Amino acid sequence: MKLRHIALAMCAVATTATSATTYAQQAPKPEDQIRYRQSIMNVIGRQFGMLAAMAKGEVPYNKDAAVKAAGLIETLSTLPAPLFGPGLDKGAPTKAGTKIWSEPDKFKAALEKMQGEVKKLPAAAGDLATLKVTAGDVGKACKGCHDDYQEKEFRN
Amino acid sequence: MKLRHIALAMCAVATTATSATTYAQQAPKPEDQIRYRQSIMNVIGRQFGMLAAMAKGEVPYNKDAAVKAAGLIETLSTLPAPLFGPGLDKGAPTKAGTKIWSEPDKFKAALEKMQGEVKKLPAAAGDLATLKVTAGDVGKACKGCHDDYQEKEFRN
Repeated sequence: MKLRHIALAMCAVATTATSATTYAQQAPKPEDQIRYRQSIMNVIGRQFGMLAAMAKGEVPYNKDAAVKAAGLIETLSTLPAPLFGPGLDKGAPTKAGTKIWSEPDKFKAALEKMQGEVKKLPAAAGDLATLKVTAGDVGKACKGCHDDYQEKEFRN
Repeated sequence: MKLRHIALAMCAVATTATSATTYAQQAPKPEDQIRYRQSIMNVIGRQFGMLAAMAKGEVPYNKDAAVKAAGLIETLSTLPAPLFGPGLDKGAPTKAGTKIWSEPDKFKAALEKMQGEVKKLPAAAGDLATLKVTAGDVGKACKGCHDDYQEKEFRN
């Protein structure tokens, strides 16, 4: 898994939406990696927002949509780890706290806690009662990590 | 499919990464929808960049990583359509061309062309020779739509 993360980080090239067919072998710029990190977290947040709204009864439960969102969240949750790696603490405005880089082992443990909870989502999403419990656990893991490692305002 | 898109757009709430456990039922702000659209397209672009680099031999082919990326791209490709809907042509800096909103039927056809090509990716990604052909087709569909509907610079 770790190797795949590294491979993804190495391979993910600084392609822009403007030139989808232009690829380069060089390492992506920190600003592109930070933007990628933010994109992944944004999609996770939006998709989980939908699941949590279903779990809370704020929107109607839709099994197909819930299972799809859960699978997407699980896949996305495996991507950000290398994007919090060395040198990616600055280069673009970010809310990622400097503690991520000063206590990487603790941060890694918090990320893995989140990933562990998220792994349960796809199986849970097919049943509303189970989703309620699991979404609560995932939400706590998200919040715990954000409380500890996310700044209130952009820095850099 | 269309209903699910609408449901996703309605459900996707204006949660921020800061407050992952706070959700609201109100429609998301245009600026949040535009940011969400950009996040999805960015993740698609990065993941497809990796696949295309494998297809071109610029990075080593890794079957597991390729299949994972292809599945992720396929799922993400189903999300942006409602994010190009009415009222989302402005509200934040965007490269999305105004033609998207002045000729929505043509744009919809271009999006569906892309989705049709992307649907073939997961099955193709497990074999490098097949991936080369399919990634080429997907790349052309991406480029065609970007050429016609994406501005070179941010507007708004």
